[in-house]
Amino acid sequence: MEDHSHYMRRAIALADRSMRNHEGGPFGAVIVKDHTIIGEGWNRVIATNDPTAHGEISAIRDACRKIDSFELSGCSIYTTGEPCPMCLGAIYWARISRIYFGFRINDAADIGFDDTNIFDQFSLAPEQRKIPSSEILRDEAMILASNYQNISGRIAY
Amino acid sequence: MEDHSHYMRRAIALADRSMRNHEGGPFGAVIVKDHTIIGEGWNRVIATNDPTAHGEISAIRDACRKIDSFELSGCSIYTTGEPCPMCLGAIYWARISRIYFGFRINDAADIGFDDTNIFDQFSLAPEQRKIPSSEILRDEAMILASNYQNISGRIAY
Repeated sequence: MEDHSHYMRRAIALADRSMRNHEGGPFGAVIVKDHTIIGEGWNRVIATNDPTAHGEISAIRDACRKIDSFELSGCSIYTTGEPCPMCLGAIYWARISRIYFGFRINDAADIGFDDTNIFDQFSLAPEQRKIPSSEILRDEAMILASNYQNISGRIAY
Repeated sequence: MEDHSHYMRRAIALADRSMRNHEGGPFGAVIVKDHTIIGEGWNRVIATNDPTAHGEISAIRDACRKIDSFELSGCSIYTTGEPCPMCLGAIYWARISRIYFGFRINDAADIGFDDTNIFDQFSLAPEQRKIPSSEILRDEAMILASNYQNISGRIAY
């Protein structure tokens, strides 16, 4: 039987240490495969000036480095906070199988993290979103995409 | 006047080079501030075994390193493909002001990248998503979040 509390407490300990070191917010994560922690991460947005250095992204990168694979199927992630859209996207790309979280998206909003605002953007049509987006040079980009399909020995991911 | 085609062609060139080097898919991105490219990135999922190493994420990290800030407000991103949910989330966190993309989400689906499947997940309630998620130890995680608010000198991000 998995000791869920043990893994979550490790994620909390990582978050607690990093926030006290002013590395970032109260966000830590561990990735578990076959009852073993194979990756750990914590928020380092402030420490590294990297807005993508969330706990989950950092843990995924750490786990993938450790097992030399861009895929984490069969793994669980334990994260102190419910994943933001960026991290949820990363979890899907990494093919993680199970998510355990501590506090909720709304709890994070209460301490100043605007995940809810970002989630709301995703449910809007692109033309209604806060950050405007436009298509340009689609023809040239489509040639690129088409050439990709003709590259021999390409690896699907 | 911004030369949008110039920046997009640079993104396409970065993608073209990296896909031919088997670093990843046909995805490149540049970040522009005040008519200058301040960050460049391309997909390196295969080359680095990092499922988060998409073109946009890589370009954001590069730009933030260059300007020593976790914020890119006032910047535009030019990306060969319409951003996936992970990258769109990163663009929001980085406070980028404008998105220009080449081919569409659906075009990417046609060459084997399942962004649409991931986007569909976001519009579902958490309990209906493909990757199950559960709340555990919320009380302990809430203590962490509450302690975060009491840290003196913390930097909002």
